[in-house]
Amino acid sequence: MTPRPKSMMTPVSMTQVNIKDNFWSPRIRTNRNETIPHAYRQCKETGRIDAFDLKWEPGDEPVPHYFWDSDVAKWIEAASYSLAAHPDPKLDALLDEVIEKIAGAQQPNGYLNVYFTVVKPEARWHNLGMWHELYCAGHLIEAAAAHYGATGKRQLLDVVCRYADHIDSVFGPAPNQRSGAPGHQGIELALVKLYKITGNQRYLNLSKFFLEQRGQNPSVFQLELENLSSEDAELNRHFFQKKAGFDTRYCQDHLPVKEQTEVVGHAVRAMYMYCGMVDVAVETEDDGLLEACRRLWENVCQKRMYVTGGIGPSRDNEGFTEDYDLPNETAYAETCAAVGLIFWNHRLLHAEGRARYADIMEKALYNGALAGISLNGREFFYVNPLASSGAHHRQEWFGCACCPPNIARLIASLGGYIYSESDSDAYIHLYISGQGMLRTAGTQVLISQTSSYPWDGLIDITIQPKRPAVFSLNLRIPGWCRKAALWVNGDKMNLDGCIKHGYARVYRKWLPGDEVRLELDMPVERVRAHPNVKQNQGCVALARGPIIFCLEEADNPAPLHRLILPKRAKFKTIYNGDTLGGIVKLQTEALFTEDTDWSEGLYRFQPPKTHPCLLTAIPYYAWDHRAPGEMQVWIREGGE
Amino acid sequence: MTPRPKSMMTPVSMTQVNIKDNFWSPRIRTNRNETIPHAYRQCKETGRIDAFDLKWEPGDEPVPHYFWDSDVAKWIEAASYSLAAHPDPKLDALLDEVIEKIAGAQQPNGYLNVYFTVVKPEARWHNLGMWHELYCAGHLIEAAAAHYGATGKRQLLDVVCRYADHIDSVFGPAPNQRSGAPGHQGIELALVKLYKITGNQRYLNLSKFFLEQRGQNPSVFQLELENLSSEDAELNRHFFQKKAGFDTRYCQDHLPVKEQTEVVGHAVRAMYMYCGMVDVAVETEDDGLLEACRRLWENVCQKRMYVTGGIGPSRDNEGFTEDYDLPNETAYAETCAAVGLIFWNHRLLHAEGRARYADIMEKALYNGALAGISLNGREFFYVNPLASSGAHHRQEWFGCACCPPNIARLIASLGGYIYSESDSDAYIHLYISGQGMLRTAGTQVLISQTSSYPWDGLIDITIQPKRPAVFSLNLRIPGWCRKAALWVNGDKMNLDGCIKHGYARVYRKWLPGDEVRLELDMPVERVRAHPNVKQNQGCVALARGPIIFCLEEADNPAPLHRLILPKRAKFKTIYNGDTLGGIVKLQTEALFTEDTDWSEGLYRFQPPKTHPCLLTAIPYYAWDHRAPGEMQVWIREGGE
Repeated sequence: MTPRPKSMMTPVSMTQVNIKDNFWSPRIRTNRNETIPHAYRQCKETGRIDAFDLKWEPGDEPVPHYFWDSDVAKWIEAASYSLAAHPDPKLDALLDEVIEKIAGAQQPNGYLNVYFTVVKPEARWHNLGMWHELYCAGHLIEAAAAHYGATGKRQLLDVVCRYADHIDSVFGPAPNQRSGAPGHQGIELALVKLYKITGNQRYLNLSKFFLEQRGQNPSVFQLELENLSSEDAELNRHFFQKKAGFDTRYCQDHLPVKEQTEVVGHAVRAMYMYCGMVDVAVETEDDGLLEACRRLWENVCQKRMYVTGGIGPSRDNEGFTEDYDLPNETAYAETCAAVGLIFWNHRLLHAEGRARYADIMEKALYNGALAGISLNGREFFYVNPLASSGAHHRQEWFGCACCPPNIARLIASLGGYIYSESDSDAYIHLYISGQGMLRTAGTQVLISQTSSYPWDGLIDITIQPKRPAVFSLNLRIPGWCRKAALWVNGDKMNLDGCIKHGYARVYRKWLPGDEVRLELDMPVERVRAHPNVKQNQGCVALARGPIIFCLEEADNPAPLHRLILPKRAKFKTIYNGDTLGGIVKLQTEALFTEDTDWSEGLYRFQPPKTHPCLLTAIPYYAWDHRAPGEMQVWIREGGE
Repeated sequence: MTPRPKSMMTPVSMTQVNIKDNFWSPRIRTNRNETIPHAYRQCKETGRIDAFDLKWEPGDEPVPHYFWDSDVAKWIEAASYSLAAHPDPKLDALLDEVIEKIAGAQQPNGYLNVYFTVVKPEARWHNLGMWHELYCAGHLIEAAAAHYGATGKRQLLDVVCRYADHIDSVFGPAPNQRSGAPGHQGIELALVKLYKITGNQRYLNLSKFFLEQRGQNPSVFQLELENLSSEDAELNRHFFQKKAGFDTRYCQDHLPVKEQTEVVGHAVRAMYMYCGMVDVAVETEDDGLLEACRRLWENVCQKRMYVTGGIGPSRDNEGFTEDYDLPNETAYAETCAAVGLIFWNHRLLHAEGRARYADIMEKALYNGALAGISLNGREFFYVNPLASSGAHHRQEWFGCACCPPNIARLIASLGGYIYSESDSDAYIHLYISGQGMLRTAGTQVLISQTSSYPWDGLIDITIQPKRPAVFSLNLRIPGWCRKAALWVNGDKMNLDGCIKHGYARVYRKWLPGDEVRLELDMPVERVRAHPNVKQNQGCVALARGPIIFCLEEADNPAPLHRLILPKRAKFKTIYNGDTLGGIVKLQTEALFTEDTDWSEGLYRFQPPKTHPCLLTAIPYYAWDHRAPGEMQVWIREGGE
């Protein structure tokens, strides 16, 4: 029933991919053995799961929160992906049990939301702007899609179809329907998933409808605000009632989506909406919608993104501010936003086939998103600053627990981000060891990768078509790589001649056992920020391959801001398999500003003295696993 | 009746000083002709003055605020000083009129506060922590002292004596008295002024009592909080009820004053309290109290002060945070706090006779405080950041209008900060042209100064003792000066031999017409901040003499953070009498970071290119008088 997507290529499903990778396999195992059970326990202990029993009564504690459903849904999604990659009868049964509860909470008309069933039933669909009803619905749909994909079981899928049908009956352009859009997006991309599974065009239309409801004048959120009690409207006014009047930039409602040019407002809302925009653009062949995504992508990547792939600098709106406003210590850079950036770039990659999207996907994956979870899989960052005075630490859970299951569902489904296929082409986007079974040129092709990525740039690939086949193998040449070399069966290729859209494209008749070797030069690089990023002028970040590094107090003299990296300092790269789950660390001789001779008080005319010291940098994703202390990504450059 | 102070020296009253100075005379004139009338109009138009008629009734707008009385009191103080320096019958009459109103508002028992007479009489003396009752009383006393000093008229003095008597009957250690201390200090220093004028020891004792009430366990503010309604206590809880429990660091109540070692909390409260501490220490010969002031001074000057003399980096508490926490763009650095720093250092200077206090006084005077008022005398900064993106501008008035009359009273009384005297010594602290009539060695000595200070370091001084007299003339050698030379009647002195406590001390028999020439070398200096001040590492501030400079967008390529000051760049100093009231500006060739070649997006490996540009710096106090734009004090240093 799946309609043929109009994209350049199709992702190879995680069910066709087997990861056997020194970097990722332990993380996927930890995700399965620690994070997913931990998230279940947290959902259980905080009452999130049993809330679906609908037994809450006024006066009971805790009061279900209006976004609780989404936490459970994301857990189901993560657990389902994990189950798809790794059979686990107990997890299978546990999923069935939770899904049974959810199914039991569905109302006769299909409605399904705990908070608006037991706590505030009279307020159903009253405050789309801030009360997350459609957002929760979106996550339930995504959970159902994942569970159906992993197990083939239809129970949750049927539940969400009934729910989606109900939503589709309430919202829409017909005279008996109402206007409105989700204040927190997510349902748009979920409805497209549901459309792709079921082939039911109404879900695609509803997704499009919700997108088109944005940026009206007056705003749908302004209209609904007028019907809220002043008490209920307080939350909305905080975010929407700005000095200059009513302003819903916070939830990307300032302009019709096709006219948007700048990433604004709450970063996670933005990412989820942009995902929905790409999905609808591809399915409806709407170039204008895709063009808007391109503009937004250029704005965020060229002006509003941290070097880690973190996005959304401000705590105030959990989101975007202005071009080049990228403070380090106060960076919000929510884990969910980096995860959302990966989702969006994965979609853009398939819509356009350009490696620049895979570059951003990889950057956020190895840095801004991965930092969100501890090595033991049980602690999480909600906020990912690029500098810390030592007080910021991962936590076991959050009242607003969006991030833990979000990073869990990403890691559990990582296999789905590595390869893509089309009739004529096979693509490798990420260098993660293991195998992928693709379908191209009318045959099955098993691709095997072996490498020590991200610590080394040498990648060996074996191609096993079921039968000899003519197709193009596309190998991503990462944007961070200044020098690459490619061999096919031992013959060195002229790379310059075969780069297309950032991929080395090898067109030939592939025979079983063909061997490809890719060598990506991976020196330590000093990264500079655009001259308009005021916080980072005179500073460099250290990068090697896709990894962004940071300084931690555990390895360096402190305060860290007194370290100066000489312009000509050469780095040693040291692989240490025992530290922090196995990392490459960078070391060089640097300078540390003296204060022992600073008897003059706070200010003086003489330049400060320095003494030599050893500077050690570790991958940013691995910070905050040792004694609490300072952390800093950008390092002042100076001297020679 | 004035008791003999136990300080090292006595300030020469502003009534004995005549300023004729190219820099200050126009400012004093503007203060008299513009600022003081402007502040009166504002007080009048906002209802602050007529509020003393006590005609307010529930429902009337505006509602008098509980700190309004202090604004009017500070206006009286400023106007009185101005009157003392410059006869003005109209202002004299206006003062009488306002004072008449205030006298009319006094209650039969001596109580005098508009808000707690007409708006909330039942809450009198209920919330000393946050309701500013004693603070307003303090300002009324200071106003009375100034008015009496300027005119000899006793009306307001008598009023405040009755009020102080009433306060003294309410508060104190006797069984029929109550405990308590002002949440916003100020009355302590005011009571010492009143004591010095009246000789009434009870006022000194009450000041001491209020100081000693601080730092009790439990805190007097905690005790009174228990008697407040939860609604009334909300304000207090915001400032006092910290995560870790009850904490009144906000108003310096965390420890007994003698045990305090760090400047904490609201900066203006702190400064006013420290002034009171010096006053009481001197009058009661309490070395322990003075020692606490020395510790606090070292903490603020060595760890918590901006290069401008601004203090209190945080908006949250309008005050202090941690050692070396001195952010530039978010600096609060309230004008009142810089003014308070001047008051405090002026007192410390007289208690100890050390030039380091005059150095801070001068720094705050020419920079952090003076920036608080526009050249036209009618616009004011409440907050004085050291960098601005262009949105921060002086305003005509504030709802909380403490700063405008505070800077006005400082400028109006500037004559009182220049000279000091003792039996054996004459002191010149500030190089401001004009004359001072001192009393030392049993005779009157007229000292005349002529200079182009602060633009030039050559100061010519004439000494006119009424009869030849043996005394030491002490000339401050500013801390910013690395090379000074001194001539007496044309003979060059060996300065090294005669420096004491930062003053060049010339002991001799002075004859009428003796001439002294002081030459203070005044090159452009690059100021560096202590290595622990993280925001300013790799940066310099520009200073010349007492003046701290800044960059403004009106003179420089922008954004300003893209400017780099080469390490070896030489400065030209250009005096321009027509610009910004007459300034020296600094110019040099600098570098500006290119972005035209920045096609790679937000991050890249290649160092940015630069092109040469002209860098122009103007005095910090003069910023924000031209087209709105960026401002920046600290400049990144780089290259050669």
